Amino acid sequence: MSPRFTLDPFSEKYAHRTSNMLSSEIRDLLAITARPDIISLAGGLPYTQAFDPEIIMRTVRRVLAEDHAAALQYGPTDGYAPLKHCLIEVMAVEGTPCFPEDIIITHGAQQGLDIISKIFINPGDNIITEAPSYVGALNSFLSYQPNIHTIPMDEDGMVLENLAGVLKGLAAKGERVKFIYTIPNFQNPAGITLRSERRFGLLELAHEYDCLVVEDNPYGMLRFEGTPCPTLRSLDESRVIYLGTLSKIFSAGMRIGWIAAPHPILDKLLLAKQSADLCTSTFTQMVAHSYFTTEDWRGQVKQLLEHYRGRRDAILEALEEHLSGIAEWTRPQGGLFVWATLPEFIKTSEMLAAAVDAKVAYVPGSGFFPHEGGECCMRLNFSYSDVETVHEGIKRLAKVIKRELSLARALGFKVPGLEAGSSHDEQ
Amino acid sequence: MSPRFTLDPFSEKYAHRTSNMLSSEIRDLLAITARPDIISLAGGLPYTQAFDPEIIMRTVRRVLAEDHAAALQYGPTDGYAPLKHCLIEVMAVEGTPCFPEDIIITHGAQQGLDIISKIFINPGDNIITEAPSYVGALNSFLSYQPNIHTIPMDEDGMVLENLAGVLKGLAAKGERVKFIYTIPNFQNPAGITLRSERRFGLLELAHEYDCLVVEDNPYGMLRFEGTPCPTLRSLDESRVIYLGTLSKIFSAGMRIGWIAAPHPILDKLLLAKQSADLCTSTFTQMVAHSYFTTEDWRGQVKQLLEHYRGRRDAILEALEEHLSGIAEWTRPQGGLFVWATLPEFIKTSEMLAAAVDAKVAYVPGSGFFPHEGGECCMRLNFSYSDVETVHEGIKRLAKVIKRELSLARALGFKVPGLEAGSSHDEQ
Repeated sequence: MSPRFTLDPFSEKYAHRTSNMLSSEIRDLLAITARPDIISLAGGLPYTQAFDPEIIMRTVRRVLAEDHAAALQYGPTDGYAPLKHCLIEVMAVEGTPCFPEDIIITHGAQQGLDIISKIFINPGDNIITEAPSYVGALNSFLSYQPNIHTIPMDEDGMVLENLAGVLKGLAAKGERVKFIYTIPNFQNPAGITLRSERRFGLLELAHEYDCLVVEDNPYGMLRFEGTPCPTLRSLDESRVIYLGTLSKIFSAGMRIGWIAAPHPILDKLLLAKQSADLCTSTFTQMVAHSYFTTEDWRGQVKQLLEHYRGRRDAILEALEEHLSGIAEWTRPQGGLFVWATLPEFIKTSEMLAAAVDAKVAYVPGSGFFPHEGGECCMRLNFSYSDVETVHEGIKRLAKVIKRELSLARALGFKVPGLEAGSSHDEQ
Repeated sequence: MSPRFTLDPFSEKYAHRTSNMLSSEIRDLLAITARPDIISLAGGLPYTQAFDPEIIMRTVRRVLAEDHAAALQYGPTDGYAPLKHCLIEVMAVEGTPCFPEDIIITHGAQQGLDIISKIFINPGDNIITEAPSYVGALNSFLSYQPNIHTIPMDEDGMVLENLAGVLKGLAAKGERVKFIYTIPNFQNPAGITLRSERRFGLLELAHEYDCLVVEDNPYGMLRFEGTPCPTLRSLDESRVIYLGTLSKIFSAGMRIGWIAAPHPILDKLLLAKQSADLCTSTFTQMVAHSYFTTEDWRGQVKQLLEHYRGRRDAILEALEEHLSGIAEWTRPQGGLFVWATLPEFIKTSEMLAAAVDAKVAYVPGSGFFPHEGGECCMRLNFSYSDVETVHEGIKRLAKVIKRELSLARALGFKVPGLEAGSSHDEQ
């Protein structure tokens, strides 16, 4: 939707917070890269084609037979109570104890992020996030005008020395931190998992500096290999606000997420949810409930993981084949994303046009940083495209990158991993 | 969900705006009055039992057959494009011209209210509402800390002299009004419709004082009799933000609403929607689209209106029979609600316990006022209960009211319409 006016006649009417509300580069990009001739490694879409429509059909049939009038009606703000029991079962798979009264159901985890921001963030408040971090979370936070402090990650997640440094520095100035936001498993966008020991360390720091922890866990169930780490909530219920979602293990289109949190916080979140939308769709909640109580949802997740594992393997193989020695990338044990880092003179946002021209798309890294950073990085999604497409996508991407490198070499940059003449081979 | 702690250990962490976030008395009440032995005239629930589940079943079947993977997937933030055409058709029934690019689809009209509040209201900003007004709107507004100025209504809606007075008074102090909020048709809670001439007058005042108008129109299609009035949007597209919903003509449980607004405002709303929930449920949007393009939705609305008209007649008859000369009430030509005013020494919020004891519930009037007002008033819903139940509910209510009046007479109040001894007959 492009503005029709060059001058916005309403510009003086908007709330101050709107100056902080920026369009997500990623959402804009998704619109462009929806063209069927482009291989998009840009999205974060689950592979919904894997779902047998007959399963949904019979699930809906059960719901309508049981109580169609309730399914079409308003429901309680905190969510459809029977569904809470299913969500608890989902959390139990990762060893997170939870009770129905600890949960409110939200319109996707994104709504959870929004209402958490709303009840905690005053303009100018300090919050902490990983860098890079999920752009949808950053946008929710920013719309309430906080100061975001970012913590770098290594291959084991947030670097605790840096976290301690930021907390200490703020404390020295008499400033508090409202919360630390983390995606501990197969992080979006980096594909990095917060190592178990660091989870304890993070919670110790949160305790020491009395700040809350927002644990966003959309991908925890999408582990292909390796040992699961304990959720932060399972380690400290009194300080952690946990966000879950059915988007990655059932359906994003149903828009069902949830928040588990200490009860006084839940009470406030409930008020925010009430004025945000009254209630989540009763229809989709009842469908989800029927699905999780009657269908083989564990088998379905297992099947999905087989797809994702194969695609993850494909993207790592393709990266190895085409970009070894040129780029670096993460090797996620689950989730949807790989994070690639190119030589620093390549600006991935500037290179995107050339990539789209070569019929491949990615998300430039800078969008995942609230301030600066990630200019030579990119997020690559492997969940949505099949193995062959993933391969072909990386091949196309490598061609674009190597062309950039040749250009850079011609301009006198020191270019890694590119033998003389190879750029000609690639033309 | 009751708080487990007497002292909230997080109390110093919340944002300032949470002190303005109060629980809706109505939502709390709905929880209590859900007991099956109580006749609830308290809710605002559509009569979803009227819907043939087979219609929904075949609608879902069509959606899944057409593109199940899309229905289960994320969708665009501004909504499922084909559904916008249906919404335009719905608006056309009331003579409101609109184009797909003028619309974003929201998670119910409540989300529309929330994101409008978010993009316009700075703490301390002036906004104007009718008094009484929809409690869900008041809660959305209040959570962004505005000054709400209220305008009384007579049987023809907002009294324009008062509106002019408030606008003039604020202008004299150099203050602006961000927007005027109105529910012009069969207002919630008053059941009052803004007379056509006043719609022109309101827009003239909005123009004179350069403020926006938020037109919330959930009930416009629920007219049983009389001549429809033009929507405010149809009279001035440049200044009106229009809210529509499918909750009253299709299903509240699908959570589908929309906003039609000038494009620069839509752009801002889209950013707020993006950080609020990414997108509305693709599944329910595709179901709604299939329903509105394939099923006889106009026939369905007509059938629903027959139910509602009968129930409206029943509540007016019962009020006449049991409370004539004691109370006054509005006579809506559509919608879901009647607003009753009792002698002013009766406090309807205090009387509620006695009513629930007598197995009938209503919503006390004071909840619909941001400041004070409505203490002797109540909102009565007639859409959800059948004709006999509505009659019985008012009979029970009248008994409670007459008992209160007897008590008041004993205390020396001048009591209208109650002959000597009648209270004994009622015991």
